[in-house]
Amino acid sequence: MSKIYVIGIGPGAYDQMTGKAIRAMNESDAIIGYTVYVDLVKEYFPGKEFMTTPMKKEVDRCVLAFEEAKKGKTVSMICSGDAGVYGMAGLMYEVGVNYPETELEIIPGVTAATGGAAVLGAPLIHDFCLISLSDLLTPWEKIEARLLAAAQADFVVCLYNPSSKKRHDYLQKACDLMMKYKSPDTICGTVSNIAREGEEAHVMTLKELRDTQVDMFTTVFIGNSQTKEINNKMVTPRGYRNV
Amino acid sequence: MSKIYVIGIGPGAYDQMTGKAIRAMNESDAIIGYTVYVDLVKEYFPGKEFMTTPMKKEVDRCVLAFEEAKKGKTVSMICSGDAGVYGMAGLMYEVGVNYPETELEIIPGVTAATGGAAVLGAPLIHDFCLISLSDLLTPWEKIEARLLAAAQADFVVCLYNPSSKKRHDYLQKACDLMMKYKSPDTICGTVSNIAREGEEAHVMTLKELRDTQVDMFTTVFIGNSQTKEINNKMVTPRGYRNV
Repeated sequence: MSKIYVIGIGPGAYDQMTGKAIRAMNESDAIIGYTVYVDLVKEYFPGKEFMTTPMKKEVDRCVLAFEEAKKGKTVSMICSGDAGVYGMAGLMYEVGVNYPETELEIIPGVTAATGGAAVLGAPLIHDFCLISLSDLLTPWEKIEARLLAAAQADFVVCLYNPSSKKRHDYLQKACDLMMKYKSPDTICGTVSNIAREGEEAHVMTLKELRDTQVDMFTTVFIGNSQTKEINNKMVTPRGYRNV
Repeated sequence: MSKIYVIGIGPGAYDQMTGKAIRAMNESDAIIGYTVYVDLVKEYFPGKEFMTTPMKKEVDRCVLAFEEAKKGKTVSMICSGDAGVYGMAGLMYEVGVNYPETELEIIPGVTAATGGAAVLGAPLIHDFCLISLSDLLTPWEKIEARLLAAAQADFVVCLYNPSSKKRHDYLQKACDLMMKYKSPDTICGTVSNIAREGEEAHVMTLKELRDTQVDMFTTVFIGNSQTKEINNKMVTPRGYRNV
């Protein structure tokens, strides 16, 4: 039985990985991932074999991991954030159907929602949704329906992949949809380059967010009706009395 | 300027904490938290001063942390999972308004959604919602509206606090609401005692989940229309082709 760890390495800084993630990489012969993330960890695991595939080659990357494991190697497949949140864990199980002799172990990590929330203050204290604005693998109509449902039910919403070269106006579209049910004064926040060089956070209203240009390294947070700004932090109360 | 770290210690096992969380506790004079969580970390941080308050004394716990910091101590306020997900980070900012001389730093951790997902397989790969079924601080009508919205928009749903002594039938009620829009055959999962002794995971249908009795140490996952069972794991595909 060969073994593949599917590992969430967190937002990027070494000290935001869990001990379990570090141990699994130390136990591995090969570390495989998208080029950018492999570059982030390379210096901490000298002597390992590193293999990368570019973006959009996700299926190839999974096959590569299973083929290396088949040779008898212990393999780490690494993902930024958490491997189970828009990460490779699902695809690894799907591709793994063809490799019944390989055991998978998923090792969770800090995802951009919780990593970014910690920088902004405490936006996710109450019920929230994660929605990716990328329509590469999901029809935009489905994304739209989810944005509207989340806004109508007064969820805090965290947006992944809010922008890209081809999707520069998607955040604007999402904010317009949200404003059908959320006040334009709803407190929002953006965090870029979480736990990496150039980390930057901003707190603003939904109306201001609509006219903000973000990049693909930004995670966006849209408050619920109770979310407030306290000393430039974005804070969602849970409802304790006597505060 | 005194300092309080508000720390998510993850699901419970020492090696599921981040390096940053461990460093912050090592740098602290006092570690404060709910009794059960302080007991989980005590042995790893000898020589620290430990202080606890029981459940339902959350505001007192925050005041205690700020008062200790006022004496010049560096303080860690610890929470299970992530401090920003139904955790103490929000309340600390609210209470902190009265202690402007104290700086807060939030340190994220692995929350039950991602920790539990890793045990079950890969249920959260696509857009998902976190909903707490506890109506101690939230009106049940609001929880109900969120359950229905999440089901209607085909989110994967992760339920926190699915049960307690007083709320033994809430999961059943939640499943009945979900079945207005989700098929009774929707793949679901439960995980108890994530990363602790007695960890247990089960994959089942929504109809079966409805008639399952869970306890307060269980996290519940309800799939979207695409979620499937692969070798007894709960897997939500993201939509990659040629799989």
